Amino acid sequence: MRVLGVDPGLTRCGVGVVEGVAGRPLTMIGVGVVRTPADADLGHRLVAVEQGIEQWLDEHRPEFVAVERVFSQHNVRTVMGTAQASAVAMLCAARRGIPVALHTPSEVKAAVTGSGRADKAQVGAMVTRLLRLSAPPKPADAADALALAICHIWRAPAQNRLQQAVALHTSKGRTA
Amino acid sequence: MRVLGVDPGLTRCGVGVVEGVAGRPLTMIGVGVVRTPADADLGHRLVAVEQGIEQWLDEHRPEFVAVERVFSQHNVRTVMGTAQASAVAMLCAARRGIPVALHTPSEVKAAVTGSGRADKAQVGAMVTRLLRLSAPPKPADAADALALAICHIWRAPAQNRLQQAVALHTSKGRTA
Repeated sequence: MRVLGVDPGLTRCGVGVVEGVAGRPLTMIGVGVVRTPADADLGHRLVAVEQGIEQWLDEHRPEFVAVERVFSQHNVRTVMGTAQASAVAMLCAARRGIPVALHTPSEVKAAVTGSGRADKAQVGAMVTRLLRLSAPPKPADAADALALAICHIWRAPAQNRLQQAVALHTSKGRTA
Repeated sequence: MRVLGVDPGLTRCGVGVVEGVAGRPLTMIGVGVVRTPADADLGHRLVAVEQGIEQWLDEHRPEFVAVERVFSQHNVRTVMGTAQASAVAMLCAARRGIPVALHTPSEVKAAVTGSGRADKAQVGAMVTRLLRLSAPPKPADAADALALAICHIWRAPAQNRLQQAVALHTSKGRTA
């Protein structure tokens, strides 16, 4: 199973591709950050995020896209940009018929560290170990994107298969 | 000046096209609502919003798109969907090089009724009068979209010209 994890953001949108199945060693296929200039207007920043995500989808052809679920409760100042970047990522995936899954930050932390309240350093350390990397991916957004992908591979494989079947059916229906 | 106003939402996204210049009678070119099923998954709903907005852009070729500025403070329960739908509308416009403007709900109310605290009925009544319609557009999201377009035509025409020049320059730069 190949998953693109997306840690959404307008200034830095973390992206990471992981391949593997639950219970077997995982492989990192790619990791990076899609950046948009803070002084550009919002519409152009969203276009830049779209172009970046499209490039990752083209290059790595993931079967699933896992996006961090954005909550409106915290980080009020930046949450709108995060919600908007996540919308673009979900749109790009759904347009291609790729199933999109949302995972909360605490689900992701719990999946990779065993604790939903782990800090960034702990998440980075576990991502490094689980993917057998020589150093933690930088910046933290990139490590978080890999953690999202790992979380998705480990959570509910049966649910993934169901979702994939539904997405395939829906996208066939739309093009028919 | 032809403006597409967008009152963003996932369940109902109001859209309205108004043509005119400040100080002259305005003309409604079209009004409607892009709907997406509440039981569909988020990715597919965003794709449906994209298809709806694209259709309105194709059909009416607006020179500006005015979108309601979403605040995270109120309506916490629905604000994420609103932010995501607004991101799709901004993305569609910016991709075509159409300048996008954001107006707050109180700016829109103040523009069409004279009061930033006007209620929905008052906004609907003024939209009806200003566009010389026989009845208020229904649902309220459709009337709000027209109010957004009117607000945009009336606010800062000089600013609009500047923005259009910048957007044209930027989109030329990108395709080069």
